[in-house]
Amino acid sequence: MKIAIVGLGLIGGSLAKSIKKNTRHGVFGYDINQETLTAALAQEAIDGETDIDGLSRFDVVILGLYPEATVSFCLENAEKFRKGGIVIDTCGIKASVVSRVEKPLADAGVRFVGCHPMAGREFSGFDHSLDNLFDKASFIMTPTDQTPMSAVREVSDLAYEIGFAKCVISTPEEHDRIIAFTSQLAHIVSSAYVKSPSLMKQAGFSAGSFRDLTRVAKLNEDMWTSLFLLNREPLIDEISHIISCLEDYRDALSSQDAERLKALLREGRILKEKSNASLGK
Amino acid sequence: MKIAIVGLGLIGGSLAKSIKKNTRHGVFGYDINQETLTAALAQEAIDGETDIDGLSRFDVVILGLYPEATVSFCLENAEKFRKGGIVIDTCGIKASVVSRVEKPLADAGVRFVGCHPMAGREFSGFDHSLDNLFDKASFIMTPTDQTPMSAVREVSDLAYEIGFAKCVISTPEEHDRIIAFTSQLAHIVSSAYVKSPSLMKQAGFSAGSFRDLTRVAKLNEDMWTSLFLLNREPLIDEISHIISCLEDYRDALSSQDAERLKALLREGRILKEKSNASLGK
Repeated sequence: MKIAIVGLGLIGGSLAKSIKKNTRHGVFGYDINQETLTAALAQEAIDGETDIDGLSRFDVVILGLYPEATVSFCLENAEKFRKGGIVIDTCGIKASVVSRVEKPLADAGVRFVGCHPMAGREFSGFDHSLDNLFDKASFIMTPTDQTPMSAVREVSDLAYEIGFAKCVISTPEEHDRIIAFTSQLAHIVSSAYVKSPSLMKQAGFSAGSFRDLTRVAKLNEDMWTSLFLLNREPLIDEISHIISCLEDYRDALSSQDAERLKALLREGRILKEKSNASLGK
Repeated sequence: MKIAIVGLGLIGGSLAKSIKKNTRHGVFGYDINQETLTAALAQEAIDGETDIDGLSRFDVVILGLYPEATVSFCLENAEKFRKGGIVIDTCGIKASVVSRVEKPLADAGVRFVGCHPMAGREFSGFDHSLDNLFDKASFIMTPTDQTPMSAVREVSDLAYEIGFAKCVISTPEEHDRIIAFTSQLAHIVSSAYVKSPSLMKQAGFSAGSFRDLTRVAKLNEDMWTSLFLLNREPLIDEISHIISCLEDYRDALSSQDAERLKALLREGRILKEKSNASLGK
């Protein structure tokens, strides 16, 4: 199979390296940054370059672009992809991407599947890409009623070949609601956490809990601003919910209500244990 | 040196195992639970048992008890410790403990140092104690103007022998203010995080950020209720601050203000990077 990757950033670059490491497929790259392409070739993350006109030579095209760039690339180049070929995106947000590119690509005879490889790092760009970034990760696909089942099967097979731990099927809307909680809220809370005036006083006082709560505050603000705004309703709901919960704890503390505080903490512990159990941990 | 540990829970048990592993000091245990003592002896975490009347035989007594139990044990048994010997506690809260036990112990001729070994796990009790729990941890001491310097030196030496990565000196009040942010707020936020109605829908959708944000929701609610209530003013301030920050992000989302949202995220990223740099990371 011949695969092209458009955009060799953290995700595109890591996919290229994983495909080279774990499969025998050919991988070719396209990036607007020539230095990135040179580095990818030098590190043998790709077998060669391709230009946009060359995309028709590929069975699968993987778009490693931000949401807006993903949409505009698809709309501008719908006729450049191979008829009957597969195009997947890798955006962290699905409904607003899938709804805008699905029909134009279908009209051009291209089989499109919205995808989200669930992995990341606190760093961006090809230089930080890894050939094992996806080893324990989920690969989420968000087909719609218009998505050809053959494409879902082929993409699923490819994801397992690449090394993903599991493939999960969702709808674009369900994906976005859940991701608002599992990923986007985590980044918002972590970013808010580090804004305490206490932050710079804590050398020697931070145990694992502080490191965990603040790790993802080191984020790429351009990408996340775009992802958050494209998913703002579910995300606003999640933020409002955690604010309301935090107010419960604060009220229990203010009124020195030990039983209430203990009940709130117990409820959280039990939920966490149930969640772990449901995840098989 | 002969060391007694009163209370062989997660912290007391881990200290016993670390002392046995890393030093040549004798370690004896006291616990109200005979099964715990039997297990500690069987696992050679201690060299033997002691009773309360035997505490006068020890150079150092380490109290591995919750805050209220620490205070009552010291007040009831001040005369049982060796005159000129050292007593340390291991509570996660310092001002309310140190202020209540310091004078009675000094009057009994005992050198007391308030201490906080900065480590923990999502599990409690001797069964989960580890001989390497403190390997990368800070050992915080909170001496006051009344604390003999000799005791601080000796306890610091012992902490390094046990295997702590570094000893940090603070005041009880400063410790409590900082710990409200680095540890207590982390547990409150993590506990609040898992209360979203989205929690049980997320199999396959959780990447590292979710795991990190929710790990410490699995907490011991008895211990943490006590610690939180004893530190409620700084903790309430921290909760109020993060609520206010979360409201900023929500407002930027609601008004679809991309520049404001990006500025909030950028500010968080830069603070996190500065914090990492100040911690030498």
